Amino acid sequence: MTVEFAGGDPRVRAVLEAGGPEVAGVMAAAEQRMAELAGRHGPVLARHAGGTLAAGGKRLRPLLVCLAAGMPAGSREAVLRAAVAVELVHAATLVHDDVLDRSDRRRGRETVVAAAGRQVATATGDLLFSRAFAELAAGGSAEGIRILSRACSELAAGELMQRADAYDAGVTVERYLERCRLKTAVLFRASCELGALVGSGAAAALGEFGERIGVAFQILDDVLDISGPPERTGKPQGTDLLDGTITLPVILASARDPGLAVLAPEGVRTPVQAAAVCEQIIATGALQECRARALRLVAEAKTLLESVEDRRRASLELVADGVVERYS
Amino acid sequence: MTVEFAGGDPRVRAVLEAGGPEVAGVMAAAEQRMAELAGRHGPVLARHAGGTLAAGGKRLRPLLVCLAAGMPAGSREAVLRAAVAVELVHAATLVHDDVLDRSDRRRGRETVVAAAGRQVATATGDLLFSRAFAELAAGGSAEGIRILSRACSELAAGELMQRADAYDAGVTVERYLERCRLKTAVLFRASCELGALVGSGAAAALGEFGERIGVAFQILDDVLDISGPPERTGKPQGTDLLDGTITLPVILASARDPGLAVLAPEGVRTPVQAAAVCEQIIATGALQECRARALRLVAEAKTLLESVEDRRRASLELVADGVVERYS
Repeated sequence: MTVEFAGGDPRVRAVLEAGGPEVAGVMAAAEQRMAELAGRHGPVLARHAGGTLAAGGKRLRPLLVCLAAGMPAGSREAVLRAAVAVELVHAATLVHDDVLDRSDRRRGRETVVAAAGRQVATATGDLLFSRAFAELAAGGSAEGIRILSRACSELAAGELMQRADAYDAGVTVERYLERCRLKTAVLFRASCELGALVGSGAAAALGEFGERIGVAFQILDDVLDISGPPERTGKPQGTDLLDGTITLPVILASARDPGLAVLAPEGVRTPVQAAAVCEQIIATGALQECRARALRLVAEAKTLLESVEDRRRASLELVADGVVERYS
Repeated sequence: MTVEFAGGDPRVRAVLEAGGPEVAGVMAAAEQRMAELAGRHGPVLARHAGGTLAAGGKRLRPLLVCLAAGMPAGSREAVLRAAVAVELVHAATLVHDDVLDRSDRRRGRETVVAAAGRQVATATGDLLFSRAFAELAAGGSAEGIRILSRACSELAAGELMQRADAYDAGVTVERYLERCRLKTAVLFRASCELGALVGSGAAAALGEFGERIGVAFQILDDVLDISGPPERTGKPQGTDLLDGTITLPVILASARDPGLAVLAPEGVRTPVQAAAVCEQIIATGALQECRARALRLVAEAKTLLESVEDRRRASLELVADGVVERYS
């Protein structure tokens, strides 16, 4: 969270105002820490890990750490370490995902794998992972490391599950939701748990909150893959269709329009075919159903905050709403 | 270290005898723990991570943990966790290396990448990494996690360095040794430090010991790549030459025979060419110089054990000698 980032998005400004000046301070310090860290492991890492981290993104996970912590007196350094750790893990998974997907661009810049090859990208991801644990370990929190290592294991299991389910038209809604939990929501959960752990407590409720908004986030991301437009998403419409990832829009649309099942996904081989299938999915109205599910999850998530004191609750509710608004 | 493994190798039997019955007990328990762990994350991981771990290998790193610990009363569980953690990290790096090298076979079995593709292999490696940290975290040792995360970062930096130096005939001996330290010796060092930490102490001396035998191990591994024979090494002679990795035998041989410099490594494109260059390298006598360097490192390593009490020292000296004997 650089000053520019905070300044550029009125929703983030609102969240930072609700969270208080300590949150903005930690978010700025996290940027500084990540930049230093990327420079400390030789020129190759400085270029690639540094570039990946500097390219930004929403910094949603570090923000969740800070807000879930509530920033009580004396927690700053521990919150900062946890915030940096979750963003490093997130960056590591992005770098590895790009290796697997052979992606050329992300967040408007060349990916590490495109710039430097698979070997450098795999090692860069490994390094980012291990630095995440080093950050937490430096703070001496074994419980924090348990939380992060469980999340990392589940993220990897989510990747395996996505691979196992590729091109499988029989994937159920339940299985899809479990995949969302594993590949996305566990790091939202861990961010909230880590924040609560080093901050003001209530880890169980906040962890559940994080998991629900994480699943909602993934559902809406999958909706965006179908709805586009590419100018907004930064990737071609129907990318998931092309790599065989069966998402909720596809599952729900196939139930509504049996003709779709034969088209998606094995039959989708070109971007033009993908865009055509996206239009068919949109025509079924499945995207509204997906959005409604995501909204329900966010509403549920917010009810979990009832036991949390006003200030933390208010700022976390704004983040939950932001997850939805991003796609509305 | 299964009973069969211990029984099959007189050197390992001697080490276990010197280390005492607790060491053999922990090594057997580590096998059990790794098998359980691989079964706990779904069928894909059970097959691939389980297969990788079950395929064995020398278990040199867990053995170093046990011997460096010295197994004082009450240390068993902590030693076991550390032993499992270092082997999981080692397995993770092997799985990722095979992805990068597109290797089909390792330790006589199909690699994960060959059996299941890059995506599954990358995720399997990530999962093994994160389970390693989870093992240590469950024991509550933040200092242990600091040691392991530093080693993981350096292993990744070593991979990056190897890539940066590929096909660079100007690589110096110093740079080669630093690469050996990063890609291999840091995990030997971490194994000894972790053992000392949870066991009988002397982490600084044992860490230095581990680093030196680790570099010696890598030098001798690189010698073996040139000397073969394939029946013994399980891979074609000159594999490093084919992928552009400039090792000590190549550096020293090029200094002795300037004609070699033009042959290696860009000119080596086929296994037949590689075998021919290996013979030229052997003819320079460079391999003896490499072996002498490795022996000096092992001798230095042993002098570092002077302050360690007799029993730990005796068993660790046997491991140091074993590193050399394997190649003699």
